[in-house]
Amino acid sequence: MAQVYDRVALIGLGLIASSMAHAMREAGLAGHIAGHAKSAESRAIAEEIGLCDSIHATAAEAVQGADLVVLAVPVGAMAAVAAEIGPHLRPGATVTDVGSVKQAVIEAVGPEIPEGVHFIPGHPLAGTEHSGPRSGFAALFRNRWWLLTPLPDADADATARLRGLIEAMGAHVEEMDAPHHDLVLAVTSHAPHLIAYTMVGVADDLGRVTDSEVIRYSAAGFRDFTRIAASDPTMWRDVFLTNKDATLEILGRFTEELFALQRAIRTGDGQHLFDYFTRTRAIRRGIIEAGQDTAAPDFGRSKAGG
Amino acid sequence: MAQVYDRVALIGLGLIASSMAHAMREAGLAGHIAGHAKSAESRAIAEEIGLCDSIHATAAEAVQGADLVVLAVPVGAMAAVAAEIGPHLRPGATVTDVGSVKQAVIEAVGPEIPEGVHFIPGHPLAGTEHSGPRSGFAALFRNRWWLLTPLPDADADATARLRGLIEAMGAHVEEMDAPHHDLVLAVTSHAPHLIAYTMVGVADDLGRVTDSEVIRYSAAGFRDFTRIAASDPTMWRDVFLTNKDATLEILGRFTEELFALQRAIRTGDGQHLFDYFTRTRAIRRGIIEAGQDTAAPDFGRSKAGG
Repeated sequence: MAQVYDRVALIGLGLIASSMAHAMREAGLAGHIAGHAKSAESRAIAEEIGLCDSIHATAAEAVQGADLVVLAVPVGAMAAVAAEIGPHLRPGATVTDVGSVKQAVIEAVGPEIPEGVHFIPGHPLAGTEHSGPRSGFAALFRNRWWLLTPLPDADADATARLRGLIEAMGAHVEEMDAPHHDLVLAVTSHAPHLIAYTMVGVADDLGRVTDSEVIRYSAAGFRDFTRIAASDPTMWRDVFLTNKDATLEILGRFTEELFALQRAIRTGDGQHLFDYFTRTRAIRRGIIEAGQDTAAPDFGRSKAGG
Repeated sequence: MAQVYDRVALIGLGLIASSMAHAMREAGLAGHIAGHAKSAESRAIAEEIGLCDSIHATAAEAVQGADLVVLAVPVGAMAAVAAEIGPHLRPGATVTDVGSVKQAVIEAVGPEIPEGVHFIPGHPLAGTEHSGPRSGFAALFRNRWWLLTPLPDADADATARLRGLIEAMGAHVEEMDAPHHDLVLAVTSHAPHLIAYTMVGVADDLGRVTDSEVIRYSAAGFRDFTRIAASDPTMWRDVFLTNKDATLEILGRFTEELFALQRAIRTGDGQHLFDYFTRTRAIRRGIIEAGQDTAAPDFGRSKAGG
């Protein structure tokens, strides 16, 4: 695989950035990978495992001379990082991010990007419940979607080059506008996460069932929720605060629908329940046919390495 | 492994019963396995794949001479099956079931069990999203919990013998009373399933996001929900109708908690969200430490074969 960028700067060294480092190395996509993490502990771990070619104490130093800068910090930290690096970006460089919401990132980062630097927001739909510089692996993005939300005046060549890097890491790229991205993600990720967090909290609160029982008997169902609810608290706090409107809209519809099903249970309306459950089963088939999962009971995640 | 029962009758040939057939065969736990399914198609499949030693057109015929009868039909069908087999049960035989709720099964089945036959209700906490006689595999129960809810006057020897069979199939047995079982399961399984069904239905309803987008971009989060929501509609309808009170109680608490989190999002209370998400993360750690799952990103299910 040919080198796509001479020097890539990874700002933030969590799951996504560390997986990018592994994937870019494996395929020889970057001449030099510079890394920065805010926490000294993360930088020390990154040094220890040789994650990057150079590790820098400040983001400003890490982006020096980079032709690609990847902002891989929590959404709430994007504005501060962008303000710090703005004056140090090389003309003609591309800045992208991997945040889970896009409108808020555009508002936070956009104003800090100098003339002549290309800002192309992005979001890889890949993750595990793990975080930190040790959690990355090269196959994380393989056969996963990576959404780009370029602004209307985006440079076509810069976008094509970034696409090339992402596709070379194994992901499929799709472009859409930022508001639509945020609504799609509210449905497919943000609302489900909040719901999982809520259910896990309720279980923990319930006096008559002990935590130990909840943990022992967490068969399929609750166990999947706990995995979702174990995701990084800072990242998810920022997601909900910055994708507020779309998330609240979806939660409103969710609550309405849940009340209708509760009423069906209360009144013993078995037909309503059966019809609803039959309809939702069809969506699952669609997902399997679309290749985002497999029918195997082990979820088929191991195929993608994550 | 020594034979535990001379003749086992499996009534219903879905995931649980077919997995029991494989597990009992693998370990030589039953002298003869007789099977019955209501559907002629399921019986034909069971014949074709050699699932049992004999397949019978009626439940009454299947239980003839059996010293263990396993009711593995939807909870809503238990009363009719029990009434049919009651007069044909051999004195000294044990009847158990694998239903997801226990109080309703005791009410439905108990009155049909003749004097001298032991009724020991049970519930294996194991499953996949698949159903039918082809879906079973011997390792389904390995390292999973199998709850028994014997009545206060249960025969100790009969209970110990059933425990022996279950443990020989690789499961861990715990005993508790039926009302407590139903509350624990409402928290760990029934409410989470209803919530997952609801969220999948909402996604399907949303006009501005197409089904194809929901399917393509269903990253972790929604994808786990669709797997849960793909479970057998008949089984789940019966679960909710027969574990109504506990499920509605848990859903009530869930809704209350969800409203509090929605309010935190609306008012921008990041600290509340962060604290909540940090607390739920700890429960996940407990589950991993309790050995019900692994920290591996592929869920570790493959270890148990399901």
